[in-house]
Amino acid sequence: MAKFAIVLAGCGVFDGSEIYEATATMYAIDSRKHEYTCFSVDKPMMHVVNHAVGQPTDESRNVLTESARLARGKISNLTQYNPADFDALIFPGGFGVAKNLCTYAVDGADCEIDPVVQKAILDTHAAGKVLGSLCISPALIARAFKDLDITPKLTAGNDGDLEAALLKMGSVHEACVVNEACVDSENRIVSSPAFLSATCISEVFASADAMIDAVLKMM
Amino acid sequence: MAKFAIVLAGCGVFDGSEIYEATATMYAIDSRKHEYTCFSVDKPMMHVVNHAVGQPTDESRNVLTESARLARGKISNLTQYNPADFDALIFPGGFGVAKNLCTYAVDGADCEIDPVVQKAILDTHAAGKVLGSLCISPALIARAFKDLDITPKLTAGNDGDLEAALLKMGSVHEACVVNEACVDSENRIVSSPAFLSATCISEVFASADAMIDAVLKMM
Repeated sequence: MAKFAIVLAGCGVFDGSEIYEATATMYAIDSRKHEYTCFSVDKPMMHVVNHAVGQPTDESRNVLTESARLARGKISNLTQYNPADFDALIFPGGFGVAKNLCTYAVDGADCEIDPVVQKAILDTHAAGKVLGSLCISPALIARAFKDLDITPKLTAGNDGDLEAALLKMGSVHEACVVNEACVDSENRIVSSPAFLSATCISEVFASADAMIDAVLKMM
Repeated sequence: MAKFAIVLAGCGVFDGSEIYEATATMYAIDSRKHEYTCFSVDKPMMHVVNHAVGQPTDESRNVLTESARLARGKISNLTQYNPADFDALIFPGGFGVAKNLCTYAVDGADCEIDPVVQKAILDTHAAGKVLGSLCISPALIARAFKDLDITPKLTAGNDGDLEAALLKMGSVHEACVVNEACVDSENRIVSSPAFLSATCISEVFASADAMIDAVLKMM
């Protein structure tokens, strides 16, 4: 039985983790008889978006607290993450990844990354464990390795802007359809497009399935 | 292709719709090549629960606005629901159903029901369309028909309190395991236990699958 750590970035596509991608990731793991533990970062969200109208509000919410909704309350601070306890570290997508875990949504290829998130990614890689990512999360992976002598191979699905940013941050891009995974065997990194290419919830699940299957093959 | 209306009650198990149940319902519909539209009620949530600690906060949030997170922004006011446009009306579970759509969480079998929700349920029944419910939502169905000469058959899974309340509200209870659906052919009502009995996310998906399959058989 493999142990997966899943990092959440809030709860809702426009300011947090994309709900279907996170749920599909958990379902792919659980339905294959493996285990997952959810983590998040304890800090304010970049902003809160009213999802009914697509506009920011003046509210303030915490990333970990909102992520707990997606984890039914069972969530740990990413500062407590130790790669020795897990076989893989997984990032579902959603704008929260690009707003709360790094600043890609605002700064593109010049983005900064949360130091706790970067440490989790680099420690996982250093421990020889697998990194998995959906949708926008390859931006996070590329940024984490940007200043190191490591060149991740990642997919941006149908998102040309993300493809350009990945290259600018020093990663290699590989085209990939929605129900396939881009596999970087050398660096033990898997990515799949999910909502960068998906047009319905079934395609999101197919993308999460492909990503988790490729991660499992690397263990 | 069948058309499903899904009613959401917020976003998060403790004060809204249970996220995995709602997502599993959408996935069950979409993966069977049918369509769904999400609805909710435009009013304040009973309260907001910090899901990381399980305690209410002093925040105020709107049921429809938070439900929009689960619908990626595509949500309609339930006042706009017309059963002529759909083949079935579905209620995923979560405490929000028992806090925002009716008052079962506070008042048990003596609960009140939101009049917009009750109208949607009774209009659907009167139009000969199918009602589907997961987890705690049979409480809502039972309450909607409480004062009428109609006796729904519903399941409460492993929840003895809900079973007693269903009987007190004039419904019939039928035992049902997590991956089965309780089918009331006479009244065209389907229910399945989901998290009333499920111990993992895969069982929730099996419950939603069974519920949607039973709903489709009735059309």
